[in-house]
Amino acid sequence: MAADRTAPQAPVIPFADLAGVADLVRAFPGPDDEAAERARARDAELTKPAGALGRLEELAVWVAAWQAAHPPRAARPLACVFAGNHGIAARGVSAYPASVTEQMVANFVEGGAAVNQLCRNVGAGLSVYEMGLETPTADFTTAPALTDTEVLRAIAFGMRAVEPGIDILCLGEMGIGNTTAAAAMAAALFGGTGTDWAGPGTGVDADGLATKAAVIDQALAFHGAALADPLEVLRRLGGHELAAIAGAVMAARMLRVPVLLDGFACTAAAAVLWKVDPAALDHCKVAHMSREPGHRRLVGAIGQRPLLDLDMALGEASGAVLASGLVQAAVSAHNGMATFAEAGVSTREA
Amino acid sequence: MAADRTAPQAPVIPFADLAGVADLVRAFPGPDDEAAERARARDAELTKPAGALGRLEELAVWVAAWQAAHPPRAARPLACVFAGNHGIAARGVSAYPASVTEQMVANFVEGGAAVNQLCRNVGAGLSVYEMGLETPTADFTTAPALTDTEVLRAIAFGMRAVEPGIDILCLGEMGIGNTTAAAAMAAALFGGTGTDWAGPGTGVDADGLATKAAVIDQALAFHGAALADPLEVLRRLGGHELAAIAGAVMAARMLRVPVLLDGFACTAAAAVLWKVDPAALDHCKVAHMSREPGHRRLVGAIGQRPLLDLDMALGEASGAVLASGLVQAAVSAHNGMATFAEAGVSTREA
Repeated sequence: MAADRTAPQAPVIPFADLAGVADLVRAFPGPDDEAAERARARDAELTKPAGALGRLEELAVWVAAWQAAHPPRAARPLACVFAGNHGIAARGVSAYPASVTEQMVANFVEGGAAVNQLCRNVGAGLSVYEMGLETPTADFTTAPALTDTEVLRAIAFGMRAVEPGIDILCLGEMGIGNTTAAAAMAAALFGGTGTDWAGPGTGVDADGLATKAAVIDQALAFHGAALADPLEVLRRLGGHELAAIAGAVMAARMLRVPVLLDGFACTAAAAVLWKVDPAALDHCKVAHMSREPGHRRLVGAIGQRPLLDLDMALGEASGAVLASGLVQAAVSAHNGMATFAEAGVSTREA
Repeated sequence: MAADRTAPQAPVIPFADLAGVADLVRAFPGPDDEAAERARARDAELTKPAGALGRLEELAVWVAAWQAAHPPRAARPLACVFAGNHGIAARGVSAYPASVTEQMVANFVEGGAAVNQLCRNVGAGLSVYEMGLETPTADFTTAPALTDTEVLRAIAFGMRAVEPGIDILCLGEMGIGNTTAAAAMAAALFGGTGTDWAGPGTGVDADGLATKAAVIDQALAFHGAALADPLEVLRRLGGHELAAIAGAVMAARMLRVPVLLDGFACTAAAAVLWKVDPAALDHCKVAHMSREPGHRRLVGAIGQRPLLDLDMALGEASGAVLASGLVQAAVSAHNGMATFAEAGVSTREA
């Protein structure tokens, strides 16, 4: 399956500054308790012992609550992959050259990447967004990665990616160097050093791993107290594609679309919003536990239990799209099963 | 999706006794190393860092090795659900009356159960086999659950369920009382007491759980040294549907069909064969970690790491069918992705 390629445009930026973004996050709508209650009530009547479908039951209620609708829907997932380049890549933090970001975008468009096959498998749409690949972020050890305008623009761009009418949003990224950015962001948000959060990424060797840890520590020292503001963490250590992911998470909340977050980089971007308000990610599930070691620590910090744990570490929304199949299964079971009364099945011996 | 219902027939029994079954297990064919090697070679050229798809890569190689073919196939999974009744159910070991077994078979046939919806979700076929529901096993605390003829017949019956041309076999069961049988079998195969292996099953209360543990201990004492033979464990403590599952695992090996095992009861049935020969389940993956506490212990005993861990405990092949979606994803990625050369993507900096 080929992907839609969307070139960056100049979106209307709906906030004056990052404080405006934080205000929007803190004003997020909550779940629809009535839809959730209708889902729970139906679940109790389905022909299975209570709780026997485990987390599939939880998923069906969660989808209903955040779609604000019952029955829940999952037939139309959309995967959005944001691609960006990072100045820090020039410091030797990746096993691959930065030119691979653009080459992989072409591979997404041609239909040759893993995520294309995974999307076809679950009937998901796929949109790929190039975030100015010719303009990498600044090297965050000596300057903020993004300017004020750049970060606001990238957030707004990500917000536009959430199309009305989709059932589930699967978020992912592509960007050589971005596990270094993600590790730096995680350290800034939740404490710890470069060594605590850096991992092999695409497969860097021991020297590269030491370099990753060192540049993260340099960045933490350089930016200092400015990192107390989570959205400044996104601006100073993040990247175009990571800010876009944060924006997509925000727009999905307002448009009532449940979100599946992919691995380490994607979760780090979303964790910025969690740090603004811990309820900000209640409409999101971390799709899978990445093989990248910092991810386990990060999902623990934001109180999530990933749906899958398959030693994956690819990015490009691959884990999120895979988990969307579980959401589809949960919704199919919830909507399609017979009740005890319909099937004439005896309930528990009381 | 409705299920095919297949009434029990009198199969040709291809062995004279349980020793003949053990001989067949010990003579199982191995994996096709050439197909596995072709899968590994292709995986190394796909446009992703080495290992980045984690267990999906392992699954693609595993399917190729056990189908003895490359490229691997997963478009046509078949779920087989075997249903049987257990004399031990009369002892109060379940939260549901034994009549529910037959009612749930009707629900499968009508398309109202969880497994029907999950099969539709992945395009799997579903066959439901009634194993003489009007003839429960004997109460295993005072007699062998099955006679010699019954256990051989059930194994042979299960063997016939594996249809030529299917890509993946998802095995499951329905049988009020069968988590007690499974716990007794696990204790007999791997040591421990009723308390070590009994769990809530469909949701038995504390009294029921104590009863489960007690009847298991009674059975272990009653059958004594006869339980040193794994296939005698299947006959004395198992059931029609559990013996059929063992038979289906055997036939799948010989017909080159990889198998996904469901939860506790299904894994216990297959573990009989593992105890005969630890290589006997190499063509099987435990699909999910059941919420039933004995399952964690059991999968550890047979050296498996389940693909999913979603707190499910339903049986009826639900976890196996859910995991077949992961196998389809793995095979789709393996077969459909572009190579580095095809996509013009740079490989690692050397």
